[in-house]
Parts: sequence; C-alpha cells; structure tokens
Amino acid sequence: MLRTNTCGELRIEDINKTVTLCGWVQRVKDLGALTFIDLRDRYGITQLRINIDSDSAISAKVKSLGREFVIQVTGTVIERENKNKNNPTGDIEITVSEINILNSSITPPFTLEDETDGGDELRMKYRYLDLRRNVVRKNLELRHRLALETRNYLDKQKFIEVETPVLIKSTPEGARDFVVPSRMNKNQFYALPQSPQTFKQLLMVSGFDRYYQIVKCFRDEDLRADRQPEFTQIDCEMSFVEQEDILQTFEGLTRHLFKTVKNIDIPTLPRMTYADAMKYYGNDKPDTRFEMKLIELNELVKNKNFKVFDDAELVVAICAKGAAEYTRKQLDELTEWVKRPQIGATGLVYARHNADGTIKSSVDKFYGEEELKKWSADCDSQPGDLILVLAGKEEKTRKGISELRLEMGSRLGLRDKNKFSALWVIDFPLLEWNEGDPNLLASLAGRWHAKHHPFTSPKPEDVELLNSDPGKVRANAYDIVINGVEVGGGSIRIHSKDLQAKMFEILGFSKEEAQKQFGFLMNAFEFGAPPHGGIAFGFDRLCSLFGGSDSIRDFIAFPKNNSGRDVMIDSPAEISEEQLKELFIKTYE
Amino acid sequence: MLRTNTCGELRIEDINKTVTLCGWVQRVKDLGALTFIDLRDRYGITQLRINIDSDSAISAKVKSLGREFVIQVTGTVIERENKNKNNPTGDIEITVSEINILNSSITPPFTLEDETDGGDELRMKYRYLDLRRNVVRKNLELRHRLALETRNYLDKQKFIEVETPVLIKSTPEGARDFVVPSRMNKNQFYALPQSPQTFKQLLMVSGFDRYYQIVKCFRDEDLRADRQPEFTQIDCEMSFVEQEDILQTFEGLTRHLFKTVKNIDIPTLPRMTYADAMKYYGNDKPDTRFEMKLIELNELVKNKNFKVFDDAELVVAICAKGAAEYTRKQLDELTEWVKRPQIGATGLVYARHNADGTIKSSVDKFYGEEELKKWSADCDSQPGDLILVLAGKEEKTRKGISELRLEMGSRLGLRDKNKFSALWVIDFPLLEWNEGDPNLLASLAGRWHAKHHPFTSPKPEDVELLNSDPGKVRANAYDIVINGVEVGGGSIRIHSKDLQAKMFEILGFSKEEAQKQFGFLMNAFEFGAPPHGGIAFGFDRLCSLFGGSDSIRDFIAFPKNNSGRDVMIDSPAEISEEQLKELFIKTYE
Repeated sequence: MLRTNTCGELRIEDINKTVTLCGWVQRVKDLGALTFIDLRDRYGITQLRINIDSDSAISAKVKSLGREFVIQVTGTVIERENKNKNNPTGDIEITVSEINILNSSITPPFTLEDETDGGDELRMKYRYLDLRRNVVRKNLELRHRLALETRNYLDKQKFIEVETPVLIKSTPEGARDFVVPSRMNKNQFYALPQSPQTFKQLLMVSGFDRYYQIVKCFRDEDLRADRQPEFTQIDCEMSFVEQEDILQTFEGLTRHLFKTVKNIDIPTLPRMTYADAMKYYGNDKPDTRFEMKLIELNELVKNKNFKVFDDAELVVAICAKGAAEYTRKQLDELTEWVKRPQIGATGLVYARHNADGTIKSSVDKFYGEEELKKWSADCDSQPGDLILVLAGKEEKTRKGISELRLEMGSRLGLRDKNKFSALWVIDFPLLEWNEGDPNLLASLAGRWHAKHHPFTSPKPEDVELLNSDPGKVRANAYDIVINGVEVGGGSIRIHSKDLQAKMFEILGFSKEEAQKQFGFLMNAFEFGAPPHGGIAFGFDRLCSLFGGSDSIRDFIAFPKNNSGRDVMIDSPAEISEEQLKELFIKTYE
Repeated sequence: MLRTNTCGELRIEDINKTVTLCGWVQRVKDLGALTFIDLRDRYGITQLRINIDSDSAISAKVKSLGREFVIQVTGTVIERENKNKNNPTGDIEITVSEINILNSSITPPFTLEDETDGGDELRMKYRYLDLRRNVVRKNLELRHRLALETRNYLDKQKFIEVETPVLIKSTPEGARDFVVPSRMNKNQFYALPQSPQTFKQLLMVSGFDRYYQIVKCFRDEDLRADRQPEFTQIDCEMSFVEQEDILQTFEGLTRHLFKTVKNIDIPTLPRMTYADAMKYYGNDKPDTRFEMKLIELNELVKNKNFKVFDDAELVVAICAKGAAEYTRKQLDELTEWVKRPQIGATGLVYARHNADGTIKSSVDKFYGEEELKKWSADCDSQPGDLILVLAGKEEKTRKGISELRLEMGSRLGLRDKNKFSALWVIDFPLLEWNEGDPNLLASLAGRWHAKHHPFTSPKPEDVELLNSDPGKVRANAYDIVINGVEVGGGSIRIHSKDLQAKMFEILGFSKEEAQKQFGFLMNAFEFGAPPHGGIAFGFDRLCSLFGGSDSIRDFIAFPKNNSGRDVMIDSPAEISEEQLKELFIKTYE
C-alpha cells in the first residue's frame, strides 16, 4: 500500500507514530515559516504541518502544490495546539518529513466544497470532480448502505438473488422499450427490460419461491426531473402467499432500512384504499406528513348563483391551518400559481376564518356569513385558518387541489425532510383508459391499459365486472408511499392461463399478438404455476428519500440529463458506418 | 401464508403437529387403500400419506392429481414406518386431512429428476421447468451464495458498491459493442458496456478509493460454448496501491470464497510469469492440478536427418506418467486427435519408456537408443512413461501440445473437479498484433491491440521499449487462474494523461479519435488522478468452477444459445415499423 493510514482515522492515541498518508490537497495555508495543508481522502481530512525552513527539498515541493494535487506524505503524528472539534482527526496533525507528488492537477472548474460555485451543467460535465465533494460522496455511500441492508434483510428471509437477462424481447404494451439490433440474427432486435416482471414470474413457476434482485431497468420515456432512462429496482417475488403476506414482508424491509440506516423506528403502516387516497388527497401517493385533507363542497355551494361553482363537476376545498393572515398579495400570487399551465385552474376562491371568528371570502357576493359557516363546519376550520377552493372538471380539479395542498404544506413548513410518514395504498383499479399517453406508442391509444401491468390479478369478487364494466374492476395491487413518494408497488399476479389470456384480450391484444409476445408465460402457466405475487421498490427514489432530496440524480453516480444524455462522456453518439452495416440497419434524416 | 411449513423442514420432533404444506406433486404411489405422494418445494420433499377410503372428497381429488400439480395440504405429522435416511424429512410423513388443488399441470415434456430424459434444446425452451430440477436449482443457489460471500468480504475490506451506467458510448477498440438507438437524440446510439472500465477509473479519480460492483457486461461476439453475449463480472478497483496489494486483496477474496462456500483451505497462490506459463504449459492459463510440463527438444533432435523436426520451428514434448502401456490403437487414435483441424498437427511422435528401461519410439529410424536416452533425460521420464512430441510452427505447435497436455491430463484422471489449483499469472505483454481477429471490427486488423485493455500500465522499466519494440513491453497485468480457467484478470492502470495519449497513439488512434472516444478520461487525468489498479472476476465462470462444471450456462438462470438466442422467449425478434420509425432507423436485407 502507498499509505499506512487513511486521512480519517488518526486520533490522539496515535501520537508519535510514523505514518504515511495519501490524498488530495484540499487547502494550503501558507503562514511563512509554517505551512498547513488539509489532506483529503474518502475517509476524512488530516492536517499536515510543514516547517518550510527545515528541509529545502520539501519546501520546494510544498511551494509547487496546488488544489487537488495528489500527494503521499510521511511524518509523525503530533498533538495539535488548536484542536478542531468539528473534525474527527482535529486533535492531531502530522509533521511532515517526506513528501511525494503522485500527480498534479490543473485548477478545477468549480470549488470542491460542500457549497460549490459550480452550476448544474458544469458539475455534470465534470461529474468525476463533483463526486469528490463530501455531500455527493455521502449520497453514494448511503446508497451502498441501503443496498447492503436490503440484501441483509432479504437474505435472512430466505430470498435468493437471481440475475435475469438484460437482452430480452420487446413488449411495447408498457412504456417504450430501448431496443438492441442483433448482428447474428438479421433484422431482429433485443429489448432492454422495463422490469424483470415475466422472468420473476417464471422463477415462481420454477419453484424459486422467494426471489429478489437489485437490478437495472430501462424505459425510453420523455424524461422529467425525477426520471432516468436507466434506473434501479429492488425487485421481489414470492410464492404461496396472499397480499397480506407481501405487505407484512416488505413493511418489514422498510422498517429494517429505517432502523439500520437512519435509526428511526417507524410505526405500523396504515392502509388506505386508492378510492380514499383520491377522495381525501386527490392523489394516489398522498403525502401524509400533514393532514389538510380535501373537502368536497359540491352539495353546499351549488345553486347560489355563482356560475363558476354551478358549472363545476367538482368544488373542492382544503383548510390551511393558521394561514388566515395571508395577505392579499400572497393570495393573488397563489391564484397566479394555480393558474399556471401545470395546474390550469381558472381561479382560486378563498375564505378567511378570522381570529375574531368572522369569515370573509372572495365570493361574499354569492355566499353570506351563514353559508360560509357551513363551509367552515365542513372544513373544520378554526379562527386563524384559510379555506382555499378550486372548482372545475373533476379530474383536473382534483389534481389541482392536490398540488395546491402540497404547495401549502411546503409553505407552512409541514413537509419536514427528516420526518417520515409511510403507508400502503391498496385496491387500485386494474385498468385505465389510455386517451393517448405520450409515453406509450401512439397505436395503443383508445384502449384499456393496465394500471399496474398486464399480469396483475383482479380481485376475485370483481372478476365478473371484466366483461361488463372493466374500469370498475379493482386489482390486488398495492403501493408503498412515503412522504408523498411512491417508493414501491406490486400486486398479486394472475397464475391461470385462461385469466391471463382474458386480460390480454381486454388490453386489445389479438390472440396471435398475445401468443407471440407472451406465449412463453402463458405456456408456463400450464405446468403448475403457484399462486404468487411481488413488489418492486424504486431504489433511486428510496435513496433520495432517505437522503432528504427531491432529486434521484444526486444519488446516481453517473446520471443522464433530461434529454437522456450523459454529458460527461458525450453519449449517445454517432457510430461508424462499419458498425451500422454489420447490424443491417441504416439511419436516415 | 398458504403454508405453515416448507417441504424441507419437518423432523421427528414435529410429530403430532398439524401443518399445512404447499408444493408440486413429484410422484404418486397408488397402493390401493393407501396413496403416497412426494410433495416438492425449493426446500425439499415431504411424503404425504392418504387413506383413500376415509374421505371420499379427498380421494376424488387425489385421483385427479398428476405430476407437477400444485397442491396445498393440511394434515398431521406422524412417524414413518419405513424411514428414508437419504431424505432429511425421511423420518416423518403427513397424514392428510385436507387437500386443495391450487393449479393443475399438463404433462411436462421431460422428466424433472436429477437425471432427465430431456435434450439440451428442449430443456432450454422450457427452461422454467428445467429450473425445477434439483441439480439446476442448486447451481443458482451456489451462485447466490458466491455473490453474497463476495459482498461480505469486500464490504469488510471497505469497498463501496457503485452502480455504473449501462447506456454508455461505443468504443469499438475492444470486442464489438451492442448498440442502442436513441429516440431522443436522432441518429445517435448508446452502447452497452463491455466492462465498467472507464467508469471505475473515474471513480478512482473521484477518490472512491475502493470500488466494486457485481455487474452485467456485454460483448457482441461469435459465441463459443463457454461464452454468453451478456455475462456478469465482479468488478473491482483500488487507489493508492501497487500490484502486490491487489494480488493480496483478491487472493484474500478467493480464499474467503473457497473457505465459506466449499470449506476448502487453499494454499498461498504461486505466481508464474506469462513467459514461463507459455514455456512450460503452452498456455497463459495453465491447469496446474498436474505437472506434465512442456519440454523443448529443438537442440536435441535437429540435424538427425528427420526432416519433420529439422523443418520445425519448435519441437516440444510432454511426458505422460504411466502411459507407456498405451496400445498402438490408442496411439493411432491420439494421432488422429492431434490432426483434427482444432489442433492441426501434421502428426504425433511418441517414445515409450518401457518397464524394462528400454525406450522405443515411432522414429527409431532416425533416433537410436542413445539419442532417446537423452530425450528421456530431458523429459525426466521413468520406466512406464510415455513421451509425446509435436513439431511445427512455433505458435501453433505450442497451442497444440498444450491441448494435448490437457487431453492426456483428462485421460489419466489428473483433472479432478473436486481439486483446486490456483495461481497468479503475471507480467503479461502489453500489446499483441491483430492479424484479423474475427471478434474485432475488420478495420482494426494490422494494428497493435491491447492484450488486456488500452488503460493498462506498462512496466516502468519497459516504457522505453514502447517506441522501439512495442511487442516486447510487459504490462503490470495479472490473471488469476484456477484449474486452467482464467477466473479473473486485471492491471495497474495508467494514471498520466501523456502516457495514456501515447498508448492510444500506439493502438492506431488519431488524436481526434482518442479525444472523441476517451477525451473524458484523459481530461479527468488532468485533475489529480491517483495511482490505481483493479481486477475483474468472470462471475459466471467462477460459479461453474465452484460447481464443478465446464459450462457457464448451467449457472445462468436464463442463458442464450450459441446464436445469441433466448429460445424460451424467442428473442431477438422483429419489432414494429412504428418502433423503427420512432428510432429513425431502417432495416434492410
């Protein structure tokens, strides 16, 4: 080894030891006769002390040092005069007797401190430098720790990690696939998996019983801030279980991770139906760190000559505790906020429940004190609270009030990143109508689409509805939601060939298409498929949640930007004609 | 849970317990009034006992059962009359009081026993059934165990697992890349990594110090029996180390795996230079379970009027201990064996060292008793041994004798799969001349090619030779070889931008090409790159070695065949015009 110790481990007990350290020059303090260097590695920072006069060879080297030079130093551990309580090695320093410059560095394009002056784009381009920053490194260490503890828990529960293939077959009924042309099989393509779904089900058919994998998955989507074309799942499947067993097992995993990684004991996870989540939070992944539930006012407000409410499919309110003192300016700004295209409301109605008990609304013209008292009663508002109301088309308005609720939660400081509120959302609908989702192939529009995926089992009591009213069928599907983030989701699967064939039919597959794409799975079901179900956690999101960040990108070593580009390596890129020719493909403008 | 216990855990202590088991019907023994069923799950087999007369509902169900039906049974644990010592649950059986058919099964196309009647192709097509067989499942359990113990060891050594990207950039200086057309970046392609090489080096530049990853890699090669287009590596990298540190660390990993997984203490690994491996074994991955070293006879045999030897660049022998009694027929057959195109020898010369001390050769016409005694002395043959000699062009002959050595080792029973002989091969050449390797793009022929990869550091004392005689330059590169299998390989890397640029120049890259493909790495080296090096283990091979198999396919859940096809899911396959169009590519005949 080029070192005897790391920059994070020497303590007062090590005094008088001769040590050799390696690392990067974080800072040089030139005090004339004395120079101090902060030497950094992955484990910490140790202060070096160099007496410039004592050795001219050392002095010359020290004078040539710049930020981020890589050096190897040998010296003696001594007690520091000015101890630094904020640094674990702050009690000691090294008097340097030998210094060896292992590599020089040009000046980094941004400062490598916890707070950096580098913009997003610059830091992405020089990601290898950004990764030197303490805060970024700690994110990846957290990720490592979470993966490790996930494995520890699942191994103890007798899960076997099985690697499933990455080069599989395109099944474009979900999101778009990334495809890979085959050189050995002319005009044919592999696809990268959106999840190992069918393979883990085959493993259940094989009797593997409890499978897991921490695995890369791929989706060719138009990217949003918290999406990446390649992402990582904790993918799990179990046989001979019912929904309750899966909820218990993975509530156990969640509890284990919070305990071992953050030393937090989380309470038993409440369960909320999808219907309740939509009704009370306008959202199937409710942030339950705070209440502020939705209150539907339709019955109360109609037929009072206020056309906006009269024409609305839905009139819905939230009660923001203690926000009655919002100024007119703040309310105007909030109104602009809900009118942005992302929300698309036509306006915002409010009612202040004043400290003196009176209630004043922006629609006093239509609703008198008595009416507003009824609003207050329904909203359970107290003096000092602010009632905010949106109205309009059902779906859009629900989405809008949900966003407004989250925004008010943030503004009122109710969404503390160090608090965690987890729950199960259950009883999802099996299907949803695809009006033309831009993340799906255009040819799939105007069809039923599997809300979870085509292998999800309908609730036995709803199977009858598959023919008469498919949209009403509920699934044995569940999501685990923490702080408004869908951290994981899964379902009990279909294990009957006939029911699976029926599902494909409802999803608009011809028999031939179903057989071509999923014949292997349906055939497998003929050979004794056990009852089974599973779950997949979005590992990147889990990491960002544990790290208290909104962005999964901070927890990925080499992420891609919103155009799916890795700006560091400049990928994707053109390939040579020779390569294209071998693959029997042509590009065109 | 649909069960209280597994089929592998009930013992004599459990007698009188009421239990519920789930599993597959392995066998039904109908003895008239009494029926026995072997119920199988991942954990074992438990015998069920059904009194047919006692309950007509149960009887009807039992009569309908076939092989591989999935059932749930409830009953009482009782002591067996005829105990089965070969089965851990063989002391007990279950008297069944309730039976529930969870799923039926049609008859599997082959028997699901340790010895099966199914051919390779059929078992690949129904891989999910093949995986039900005990022997195949155990292979994947071994793989899981090896991955787990690898992580345990590396975690203790402070390695951090970091996931590197799968969608990267094509760098066709190695084997062929699989490429992925980008929808969002028209006419551009990602490539799948042949290894995370450049990323792990960037992580060292970032200061991550000790990195590992168990990771899928991809190579678009013409496949041989022991290759797969996607394969798994244990990929590792360390900073502030020299070659010795890496050898020690990963010898430690190897020892840990043998100890924990197979309870074998392996001795300290010997080290052999590449030059010695080629000289004594004709092979850079020598099988050292047995001696039978190569002996060069050039000086001894030339100028004795035997034209074959006189014209040969190399005359080389092995001494097969105790094989003097090989019959003429056996020797003729061996001669045919070396004449096959795979070896391509023109003939085989032999000399029998008879039990009476005389030596008789197939070339007695040219070499008298005295001459043959010199052969014997050089070959250290004893009475009873057989000397086998090949002659011809240097490279081909060396390769041929190496194959013959392995074949004789096998025939003489010297290659026991339960014995393990590990060593390091070191001092590899840095470069090799590419005459036209079919696994490389044709445009790379007639150039120097990096034997390991372009980032491998030359030995400092050989750097001078880079200009004058590149083929002579040795690298700081090493392979770990076990039983003739290259299990892992690595090198100390270049960490100077200038030396890296020089390497690319020697490999025939223009400055622009080098900058375009690897600019990010060379730029990174300007910001204080630490000395670093690493290794990658072929995880599939490691598993097959530990499992005593020659085929990595047996240790991959869903492998591909020699044409790169997954015959179970029938992939690769055609994709739709709509998909092609979105990707801006066209196929052609």
